[in-house]
Amino acid sequence: MSVTAALPVDLARIEAAAVRLAGRARRTPLLNAPGLDRIAGRQVLVKAECLQHTGSFKYRGAWAALSALPADIRGVIACSSGNHAQAVARAARQSGRHALIVMPQDAPRIKIAHTRAHGAEIVFHDRATQDRDALAASLAQERGWALIPPFDHADVIAGQGSVGLEIAAQAQALGVDEAQVLVCCGGGGLASGIALALAAHAPGMRVHTVEPEGFDDVAQSLAQGRIVRLPQRTGFCDAIVTPAPGNMTWPILRAHCGPGLAVSDAQVLAAMALAFEHLKLVVEPGGAVALAAALFHGDRIATETVIVTASGGNVDRAVFARALREGAPDADCGA
Amino acid sequence: MSVTAALPVDLARIEAAAVRLAGRARRTPLLNAPGLDRIAGRQVLVKAECLQHTGSFKYRGAWAALSALPADIRGVIACSSGNHAQAVARAARQSGRHALIVMPQDAPRIKIAHTRAHGAEIVFHDRATQDRDALAASLAQERGWALIPPFDHADVIAGQGSVGLEIAAQAQALGVDEAQVLVCCGGGGLASGIALALAAHAPGMRVHTVEPEGFDDVAQSLAQGRIVRLPQRTGFCDAIVTPAPGNMTWPILRAHCGPGLAVSDAQVLAAMALAFEHLKLVVEPGGAVALAAALFHGDRIATETVIVTASGGNVDRAVFARALREGAPDADCGA
Repeated sequence: MSVTAALPVDLARIEAAAVRLAGRARRTPLLNAPGLDRIAGRQVLVKAECLQHTGSFKYRGAWAALSALPADIRGVIACSSGNHAQAVARAARQSGRHALIVMPQDAPRIKIAHTRAHGAEIVFHDRATQDRDALAASLAQERGWALIPPFDHADVIAGQGSVGLEIAAQAQALGVDEAQVLVCCGGGGLASGIALALAAHAPGMRVHTVEPEGFDDVAQSLAQGRIVRLPQRTGFCDAIVTPAPGNMTWPILRAHCGPGLAVSDAQVLAAMALAFEHLKLVVEPGGAVALAAALFHGDRIATETVIVTASGGNVDRAVFARALREGAPDADCGA
Repeated sequence: MSVTAALPVDLARIEAAAVRLAGRARRTPLLNAPGLDRIAGRQVLVKAECLQHTGSFKYRGAWAALSALPADIRGVIACSSGNHAQAVARAARQSGRHALIVMPQDAPRIKIAHTRAHGAEIVFHDRATQDRDALAASLAQERGWALIPPFDHADVIAGQGSVGLEIAAQAQALGVDEAQVLVCCGGGGLASGIALALAAHAPGMRVHTVEPEGFDDVAQSLAQGRIVRLPQRTGFCDAIVTPAPGNMTWPILRAHCGPGLAVSDAQVLAAMALAFEHLKLVVEPGGAVALAAALFHGDRIATETVIVTASGGNVDRAVFARALREGAPDADCGA
């Protein structure tokens, strides 16, 4: 497709990021369990990025971006509800830089605590009244530090793309060449990075974005062939409630992904409980949407194998306890 | 040490088991997190066997034993409170054999359900009034099937020893040659297998068994230099409450392991909560005792790095919810 040549990130950038990430990011396992296969009615392979450093795939993009910065940039600034924040904080400390994170006041406590534990300075903003991007931009100018956006950045996308390189290799080692690949999607950094990697290394695999119902701006954008912007608001799947695909991720998503899927909060809770039970993984709501789609939207899947990202595990105890109470309550009664 | 030559399992048997397990058992990751290192005051590396097939290391020993049986043995019988049962059931199905599991009536529901899901027939016994070993032996004779003991069996020990081969290789890849290796211990199959593998492949590492307080028959045996038998009763760490080390594991434990450690139920709950938070792993009580010792018994550890097994993740939802409520309640407040 001639459009590929014009995309803002290419395979060479992903492979270069993978080289910088080697020995630093974890090569996370691709897991499966007979109990999940039974529910889904097909083989389900789960890329366990909740086991990545800082508890989400975001560490890949953060390190890919920071390791490409000029050495004289002494600090970095990021806006994030949490996972990107922790990732940037850790990558900054590892590269000997300061990190300043602009974070909403209502971010989960565990994410605030872990970001602080990685040594970052935090500036809180009010989601309702403050423009976090403007705040971050002015702080960046003031200090002469680099802004590291959560998805609209070529090296961030390239870093997330390393997940796709691993999926291709790990699936092929299991004899799987053909699969729909369901990817948890906020701004589209992970989905677009994986899609680019798979287009080159596993042409029999296609990425479908998965979002929470009511926050499916990417699915709507893919359906309409143009960026659809939804009202900004908060939701249960806090890590992935973005209003629109990014300017840089959108052309990649349009070229390589879709149609997009959407799942309910009840399905997300069930997927979290089933990941607890069958995979022994802690998955956060935003990281469980793809597994939820694989388990409960089988009518949208045509391949014998479905691959899903479990993209993060940073969840407050109370939310996880709710998933244990409410999610798939009959699941541990056998079958 | 001349005693080594007389041990009931040797390195060749472990390496042969590892060959049979290659491509079948998962090579589980060796994980770490800065938050755990801070609590422990040293580097903590966690061998995540809760991610093994059937949710515990027991699958290794089960497959190692079943794959060594004569082809004309059509079925296998095991006594188990759960993890060994699931492991034998899955290995039996994979090798085209029947499985019959003798299980206590009060085993966790999730373990009963998962054992049935793997296709096994279950015969329940009453812990208080029935001798499960006699029951299993008479069933084995009746049917002409093979008994697969949970730890006192050379190929079972050899299969668990493959964990030790992986620990040696994975730690050395991180530059770690010297460490105390804390192993969750019931009858001693995992601890003795790992100890034999490390004695050959990582002589700077020594295994210390970890048991629940009040169930530390192995620690007492090691301290006294003879098998100490404690009263049989149930406990919170259901997977590892055995009354005494095995006849086959004991000489290996005595030659290579100790001193043994013991932890409280409160420490186990805290370790489960901290594994949830920092590693995104679901660890069951009996699988969390080694991590608990690493975090809360630092005075018993002399090395800069401590390696622990997280040996299983088959835990009922209610028990895990209790760990989230009660375990290390201040842990997510930063630092």
